[in-house]
Amino acid sequence: MSAAPQSREEFKQRLHAIGDERYHDKHPFHHLLHSGGCTVDQVRAWVVNRYYYQSRIPMKDAAFLSRVDDHRLRRTWRHRIEDHDGTTEGTGGIERWLKLAAGVGLDPEYVRSGVGILPATRFAVDAYVRFVREEPLLPAVASSLTELFAPKIHKDRIAGLLKNYNFANEETISYFQHRLSEAPRDVAFGLEWVLDNAVTIEGQDSAAAALIFKTEVLWAQLDALNSAYVDPGRIPLGAWMPGEGLA
Amino acid sequence: MSAAPQSREEFKQRLHAIGDERYHDKHPFHHLLHSGGCTVDQVRAWVVNRYYYQSRIPMKDAAFLSRVDDHRLRRTWRHRIEDHDGTTEGTGGIERWLKLAAGVGLDPEYVRSGVGILPATRFAVDAYVRFVREEPLLPAVASSLTELFAPKIHKDRIAGLLKNYNFANEETISYFQHRLSEAPRDVAFGLEWVLDNAVTIEGQDSAAAALIFKTEVLWAQLDALNSAYVDPGRIPLGAWMPGEGLA
Repeated sequence: MSAAPQSREEFKQRLHAIGDERYHDKHPFHHLLHSGGCTVDQVRAWVVNRYYYQSRIPMKDAAFLSRVDDHRLRRTWRHRIEDHDGTTEGTGGIERWLKLAAGVGLDPEYVRSGVGILPATRFAVDAYVRFVREEPLLPAVASSLTELFAPKIHKDRIAGLLKNYNFANEETISYFQHRLSEAPRDVAFGLEWVLDNAVTIEGQDSAAAALIFKTEVLWAQLDALNSAYVDPGRIPLGAWMPGEGLA
Repeated sequence: MSAAPQSREEFKQRLHAIGDERYHDKHPFHHLLHSGGCTVDQVRAWVVNRYYYQSRIPMKDAAFLSRVDDHRLRRTWRHRIEDHDGTTEGTGGIERWLKLAAGVGLDPEYVRSGVGILPATRFAVDAYVRFVREEPLLPAVASSLTELFAPKIHKDRIAGLLKNYNFANEETISYFQHRLSEAPRDVAFGLEWVLDNAVTIEGQDSAAAALIFKTEVLWAQLDALNSAYVDPGRIPLGAWMPGEGLA
């Protein structure tokens, strides 16, 4: 016989504790970035690599949609794709990220091409897309709940970039400004859905494991970035080199 | 060395010829339906089974989106999902199909449940979703080109249903009315995309094979429907029986 599930409130606290312990706001690279300690090339390396994550988010959400047979749930989830892909030229998170790329002196078409992305970034991001494509819907939704912890990092980032870097202005940081309103709305729905659907201890464990997995996906990207461009700064063959891909 | 590809015009004619020969407007069940020869139970059987196809179309399109790394192509393709899932309660092709279900006396919740769908319908439809999820993008797009042939069948159906059946009115046939404007816009884009991307004879062959495959997916559904409910009328165990699922 299964153990009893945690209460809704206990389980919610468990999810929040995962963020407190593991979310990538604690990664040294983010401290360096937000405090103004990054060189422009380190910022560029972050922009190039993080683009790959951004670019796969709508593909991940479409993979989720493709497995949902309730058109009402699809309808609610679909606006995540709209947020990222936009509705017309010049709108959506992906094009906003490319404005940041242009702002730091990169050629947006180079960034879009995917050339120069660290293999470890690809491996981590592709693992996330595969997870959402293949795992049961409960862990698939739970893996999105890192958005619970995103508003704080976005606020810190906006303040830190504006204070410390010449490239930062309303246009170049518009991606983060939009996420401040989008992420809380998305995660309010996702959290309720997970709390409603994780009604056995096995379900709760699978959802918690999915959220831990997702924090690992985010953390591994920063470890790879830090290793290549900060400490020890050993850039893998084929990855972006300072001077490449400039506008 | 490969054979030379067909010219754009030759290849386009080849695609059209596939429809002329194989599209399901030639299936005897459609002749029976449009001419008023169906009993109400045969219409209900069609509505129950065709719902499964309708319900999987946005999942198929999401599976396609999940594989497209160009956000502009995703943005263009995304409106297919919007057309089917709608933007608010009461909108979209799936809910319009459920109005048809209600119009023929079925309980829309029964139809949505998927109970009673013929196994052969599931097999055919699931094969289509799998095809779009797994095959290269060119055949995945080409498999949607049966929409080239859809306007005629929708016009025939609207006229035939309105003339021959008491249940047919503006509300119950609104699904087909909407498809009259949606399908030509979608297929205009899809056809251009296929013509632009099928630039080798191997690519052209794969696109033509995909379109043939899709006509088989449609035809097989009608053969199964006809076998179960018309001729010889042998309903497989577990499939919808007259009297079930009524409102």
